[in-house]
Amino acid sequence: MDDDPATEILEATYRALCQHGYADLTIKDIADEADRSKATVHYYYDSKQNLFTEFLDFLYERHTEQLATIEGDTPRERLGALFELVLTDEQANPGQEFRTAMLEVKAQAPYDDAIQTRLTWFDEFLFERIRDITAAGVESGAFDEDVDPAVAADFLVTTITGAHTRRVAVDYSAERLYETITRYAEDHLVADEPTEATH
Amino acid sequence: MDDDPATEILEATYRALCQHGYADLTIKDIADEADRSKATVHYYYDSKQNLFTEFLDFLYERHTEQLATIEGDTPRERLGALFELVLTDEQANPGQEFRTAMLEVKAQAPYDDAIQTRLTWFDEFLFERIRDITAAGVESGAFDEDVDPAVAADFLVTTITGAHTRRVAVDYSAERLYETITRYAEDHLVADEPTEATH
Repeated sequence: MDDDPATEILEATYRALCQHGYADLTIKDIADEADRSKATVHYYYDSKQNLFTEFLDFLYERHTEQLATIEGDTPRERLGALFELVLTDEQANPGQEFRTAMLEVKAQAPYDDAIQTRLTWFDEFLFERIRDITAAGVESGAFDEDVDPAVAADFLVTTITGAHTRRVAVDYSAERLYETITRYAEDHLVADEPTEATH
Repeated sequence: MDDDPATEILEATYRALCQHGYADLTIKDIADEADRSKATVHYYYDSKQNLFTEFLDFLYERHTEQLATIEGDTPRERLGALFELVLTDEQANPGQEFRTAMLEVKAQAPYDDAIQTRLTWFDEFLFERIRDITAAGVESGAFDEDVDPAVAADFLVTTITGAHTRRVAVDYSAERLYETITRYAEDHLVADEPTEATH
């Protein structure tokens, strides 16, 4: 990789987080994973908290890039592609270890403003993306005209968040959650006589 | 209180958990909160893991009792009462500290079978309760005949779980989540011409 050391350390943080979880994660774990000394890590990031904040910014950038490149000719296809990206393991998606660590990070949010701020960015970005796709669907007539894009998006962000939590807490099947949420969109967002064929 | 010492220790565990979180919780914290010695706590519960498993059983019993006593003459009223119980702070509901600690516990589930088993009980009980209320609504004609009670319940459990996570992770408003989910039920479950008046 041509990454600079600072970025390599963030990549190593990802792997160390999956392996150790958030509570037990140390600068030493990250240094070991990056194959660098603790002093080098400290040179780029002066504390675990500072490193972790930068790490969340790094994840946010990657996540928003992924969400921005969602493809589909129609709002319905784009919403389907978004669900697939955030709910299934089909794409370059995180594994169970990473999801578990992120749930641990979410439980830290009330005690750490920098973490809560960044989690709010993720939450809002997903909300805006779904709201915009839904608004485009309503405008084009493909979605039901009674759908309020902001209310639908808020509801779907809540459901997607719940899907992530249930996968960790009760080992719930990703496929089943994906099907349930897709069915919701087909039944309650898409207009009764859509212009494109189903399935 | 007339509680036996074993139950008093579980009550103290609740308070200690709210104060210290799960990762940092020690038998000493619980003993201090119960105003008893560590030896006494150990007499009743031989390890933190064992105590915590019993604590989740104790919470489960209380939670299922609350959910069992939901009142309402119609399925629609019962579903509304259930949303109020699990989503708002109107009733004898846990505060933000407890919700945060429980999110931390959920992130432990993949590493602890006893915890995951109990979280699955909570998840399934809520699912069954919503499924049964929804089925009664469909049967009575108050809910849309096209609603599949199991699919609707699965979706609502996911959304309720997401509501709990968002409250902790992004400090999302309980009222807004309650309104969104109630509106979903009114729009998508309740039949277009319900027999009872709205609001």
